[in-house]
Amino acid sequence: MNEIVFVGLGLNDEKGITVKGLEETKTADHVFMENYTSRMPDFSLERFESSVGKKVQVVDRQTLEEESGKVILKAAKMGKTVFLVPGDPFIATTHITLRIEAKKQQIKTRIVNGISIISAIVSLSGLHNYKFGKTVTVPFPENFSETPYNVIAQNKSTQLHTLCLLDLKATSNEYLSINQAIKMLLEIEQKKKMNIITLDTVAVGIARAGNINPKLKADYVRNLSDFNFGEPPFSLIIPGELHFMEIEALIAFADAPATLKRSAQ
Amino acid sequence: MNEIVFVGLGLNDEKGITVKGLEETKTADHVFMENYTSRMPDFSLERFESSVGKKVQVVDRQTLEEESGKVILKAAKMGKTVFLVPGDPFIATTHITLRIEAKKQQIKTRIVNGISIISAIVSLSGLHNYKFGKTVTVPFPENFSETPYNVIAQNKSTQLHTLCLLDLKATSNEYLSINQAIKMLLEIEQKKKMNIITLDTVAVGIARAGNINPKLKADYVRNLSDFNFGEPPFSLIIPGELHFMEIEALIAFADAPATLKRSAQ
Repeated sequence: MNEIVFVGLGLNDEKGITVKGLEETKTADHVFMENYTSRMPDFSLERFESSVGKKVQVVDRQTLEEESGKVILKAAKMGKTVFLVPGDPFIATTHITLRIEAKKQQIKTRIVNGISIISAIVSLSGLHNYKFGKTVTVPFPENFSETPYNVIAQNKSTQLHTLCLLDLKATSNEYLSINQAIKMLLEIEQKKKMNIITLDTVAVGIARAGNINPKLKADYVRNLSDFNFGEPPFSLIIPGELHFMEIEALIAFADAPATLKRSAQ
Repeated sequence: MNEIVFVGLGLNDEKGITVKGLEETKTADHVFMENYTSRMPDFSLERFESSVGKKVQVVDRQTLEEESGKVILKAAKMGKTVFLVPGDPFIATTHITLRIEAKKQQIKTRIVNGISIISAIVSLSGLHNYKFGKTVTVPFPENFSETPYNVIAQNKSTQLHTLCLLDLKATSNEYLSINQAIKMLLEIEQKKKMNIITLDTVAVGIARAGNINPKLKADYVRNLSDFNFGEPPFSLIIPGELHFMEIEALIAFADAPATLKRSAQ
């Protein structure tokens, strides 16, 4: 069977993959994996290879972008090829180009979805999914951008929450911290003065989603900006209007201060 | 260990669960499952039970809502209890109450995330995740509501896509169809005349996300409203502004008409 099966690895470690994804990998002729669109901190390639009984070829960004993923397209012409991607294969848009190129070359493609940080964070937070607006990524300070602030402002104008993904440098294993992200947002506030993120704004920091021991902390920005979240990866939610059930969940599971109840709708 | 582990079953069938979720279930003293917040069309309880070597007690809405899930809380006081939920355990907000009640009774809780329809649909569609606004559910005609239309209008005002989940009646196994959802939106358009959903609007229908053979069709509403999507479950995306890469993906994987290219940004 000449095809590419895009399989999501899910979060954190080699057990975040679905049973379906594992089975597809076991029956593949060729297995590739990338680990640069996001990081799985506890993933062991050795353990994964032993669980599927196959060698996995790890490809870096440069190799993958060379002639639209030639190495994978070539393998797919010789047999069933599984391409493993952290999280879900197409939540980051990087690999859509490869899928389109495969189609052009008459190679069949299929998707086995994986757990995405997008839904996992919403789920862990206890906040209501239908109250989230547009998602945004906060970049490192050297790529300073006002976009995250503007997206939060736009979401807040209709009472919606904002999920902020924090940037990472896969090659050097650097993660933007929650503290750095807050600092950048406060700097923009100082300039714009739109009262979007102040020291009295409530925010929710999440570290290690998908790990058996994630860390959540909801608090006023003044208390969060030097809070120690431990090991990465990190995400940040800036809530819009909180429903009283959401506040109750934040108090129960994100150690939010009880004073939050006063701001309940 | 007295605890409740909320485990997501993912989509479609018994192989949508993660390896982690399967392992947690195998080591549980008590296993419960609900199947009313969403449906997994190809899920076989028998096959699942045989893969975990355990009996699974299926609980209906009434049992679960009785005294905040007494049956599960009681089991958790006697040993490790796994509660299986279709999709991700907390993307539908139903079970947050149980988690809070457990906390009040000093029962530890953990989450093993599952694949959610929210991220799977975005991923299958090839549209860009950061261009989605607020998600909305379209109800059955007897629960007619203008909310879906208003949410789409609000998202469109900032060029954002809208993911429309289509309602279902788990007890009678009825699914709102894509055609019905479109019809309801067109009716509201006739009344409001805001030019949000017309026969010339582009929409993307998705059937059977998570299945090995999902059906996607992107087209103008005039052509979608009697398109045969086959078996449920169904979802619908009303795009805001489409990027040319998104259009290319819709043409390649959702059989969109080539004329769509004209509307590219």
